[in-house]
Amino acid sequence: MEYETPLFFRVMQYASSADRDVIDMVSGNPDWDPPAALREGLHEYADLESAAFQYPPSDGLRELREEIAARRGVDVEQVVVTNGAGEANYLAMARALERDRGDEVLLTDPVYPYYPGKTTMLGGTQRFVAADEDGQLDPADVRAAASERTGAIVVNSPNNPTGAVYPEETIEELVAIAEEYDAILVSDEVYDHYDLSGRFASALEVESDHRIVTNAFSKSLAITGFRVGYAIFPRDLVEAARSRHMLVNVAGSRPAQYAVLQALRETDPAYYEANRELLRERVATFTDALDAAGAEYTTPEGSFYVLARFEDYPGTLENVFRLIDEAGVAGMPGDAFGESRSDWLRFALVTPRVEEAAERLATYFS
Amino acid sequence: MEYETPLFFRVMQYASSADRDVIDMVSGNPDWDPPAALREGLHEYADLESAAFQYPPSDGLRELREEIAARRGVDVEQVVVTNGAGEANYLAMARALERDRGDEVLLTDPVYPYYPGKTTMLGGTQRFVAADEDGQLDPADVRAAASERTGAIVVNSPNNPTGAVYPEETIEELVAIAEEYDAILVSDEVYDHYDLSGRFASALEVESDHRIVTNAFSKSLAITGFRVGYAIFPRDLVEAARSRHMLVNVAGSRPAQYAVLQALRETDPAYYEANRELLRERVATFTDALDAAGAEYTTPEGSFYVLARFEDYPGTLENVFRLIDEAGVAGMPGDAFGESRSDWLRFALVTPRVEEAAERLATYFS
Repeated sequence: MEYETPLFFRVMQYASSADRDVIDMVSGNPDWDPPAALREGLHEYADLESAAFQYPPSDGLRELREEIAARRGVDVEQVVVTNGAGEANYLAMARALERDRGDEVLLTDPVYPYYPGKTTMLGGTQRFVAADEDGQLDPADVRAAASERTGAIVVNSPNNPTGAVYPEETIEELVAIAEEYDAILVSDEVYDHYDLSGRFASALEVESDHRIVTNAFSKSLAITGFRVGYAIFPRDLVEAARSRHMLVNVAGSRPAQYAVLQALRETDPAYYEANRELLRERVATFTDALDAAGAEYTTPEGSFYVLARFEDYPGTLENVFRLIDEAGVAGMPGDAFGESRSDWLRFALVTPRVEEAAERLATYFS
Repeated sequence: MEYETPLFFRVMQYASSADRDVIDMVSGNPDWDPPAALREGLHEYADLESAAFQYPPSDGLRELREEIAARRGVDVEQVVVTNGAGEANYLAMARALERDRGDEVLLTDPVYPYYPGKTTMLGGTQRFVAADEDGQLDPADVRAAASERTGAIVVNSPNNPTGAVYPEETIEELVAIAEEYDAILVSDEVYDHYDLSGRFASALEVESDHRIVTNAFSKSLAITGFRVGYAIFPRDLVEAARSRHMLVNVAGSRPAQYAVLQALRETDPAYYEANRELLRERVATFTDALDAAGAEYTTPEGSFYVLARFEDYPGTLENVFRLIDEAGVAGMPGDAFGESRSDWLRFALVTPRVEEAAERLATYFS
């Protein structure tokens, strides 16, 4: 599978140039507010002396790394603050492949399109393991696909685009498979704060030198544009990852790191719970309308997305454009995430107009 | 030459744990204030609606790219906003090497240590061309080193660590050599606003499909921690660079880009001139003291650095530590920049205590 840069952009461009009102359910940008402490942190930073405007430590502000380490129960030396989850995944996959223990990367189908793109850029080869209809991954299928050639296994739970949350047994098994084949499990947990099922399990819960956990504050603090993420490495892999981070980016952006630190320190758990509750309501509203439209769909256990299938309406780019023009709702074509979902459309529930969108779809398809 | 991550840090760590007052002349962090409009931009951004906190375009805020394009006289499509000059150089060198027109990278000696580090990370091989005593690069030497194997030529003017500013003829010749050998000239111009000689020439002045210009606002706006830079690509190379940028970082940090845009729009040329004037005074103060200490030195035509050689005091890490302990001045060992300067020490003039440092050195060595 090729990485197609322009697809998200082509859909959003088409939607914004449409001759009618269109509800944007394309991007994964939260539409709710970041916590107040984040804005306060930026204001505070803006008035600091000029020394605070200079290079932060390459691996991130020390206090931010300490805060992350304390929350995740790891040693601060294992934490590298990155330019969002995007760079965290890049560093993790590069580290896995540089070990020369196999150049094959096991990915899921459907897949978040950046993973195959990064694999190719890093000189690895892609191998896909099909998730089931609900988006769950059967570790037995992963084991069947694994071999001496496997350098990395990349998973994402809560999942984009399926909404699946992998149970603890799956995560344990995936770590075991990585150990068995001397591969690295890269566990992208960027939607961890949007676990609606209560059964999210982090790969950090399984002690191992064969897993790297990536994450970011992009979704949890509703700041996809700040680019503050992190990766947690096993001790023997962190040094080389730190070097690559330095050679690529020197350091991350300090105002963003400072504001995130303030937000982490001062934001009440109620903030996160309120956002989950909002999502739960939107899931209910949207899936009710899909029922009314006679569509098949997945009810997400986490993340922001609903995959839906309408009769005789495959998830092609052409049909996405048609839905924009004729129903005024913009989603993503399912085939952007792999062949297995080519009959489906992905709708992101990050718009206050979910109810209206649902009504439009119900009207259009019924 | 290996990239040595910890060297800067080891020196700074040693200096900060020293048992006495030490003047830091190690880092390249400006000690003067960023423009007022930058702080105002951050404040303004902090109060925007939450949509402004989400992903900027991957290649940078449109208005920022337009501002850069207008200032540099290029098409906006050629501009990619990066995470500082560090990422800009990484993207430029990756692009040059991916063309499969040679895997050798011509670098200068002395060299800014990140370039050889990036070369190795990208799978290229290093070949060094000696600069003369003043830091000037003779294009004839570059031509003699160039071959079918040459994929990239990486230069930096105004130069770190020599302070040399290459004249227009040098830049023209370097572009011609890149064309001749189907290589890419990567021209890192991050110190362009600190040209003290008035003869700085940008590689953009030479029209060619064989040069990439990199830059950042880190030094010009005194914000090394913001990580906003850019690269200007020939039209046929920009698309692939944009993809790599997206696959590595997704996008740069938006609060930083927003503040930089405000600063560019609202900062008077007098801001930049005042900083140059400050540097000129510091150069004079510092080199006077070096004369008094009987040292050899280079008078910088640009950038922040003075290279100095003291009798029987080679530029080793050991001697840098000794100078910290015995004179209370921290510089960088010259051998960090290549063998040719192993007898020298580099002092960064980005401290308000330049005069005091100069006096300490004069006293210590005389």
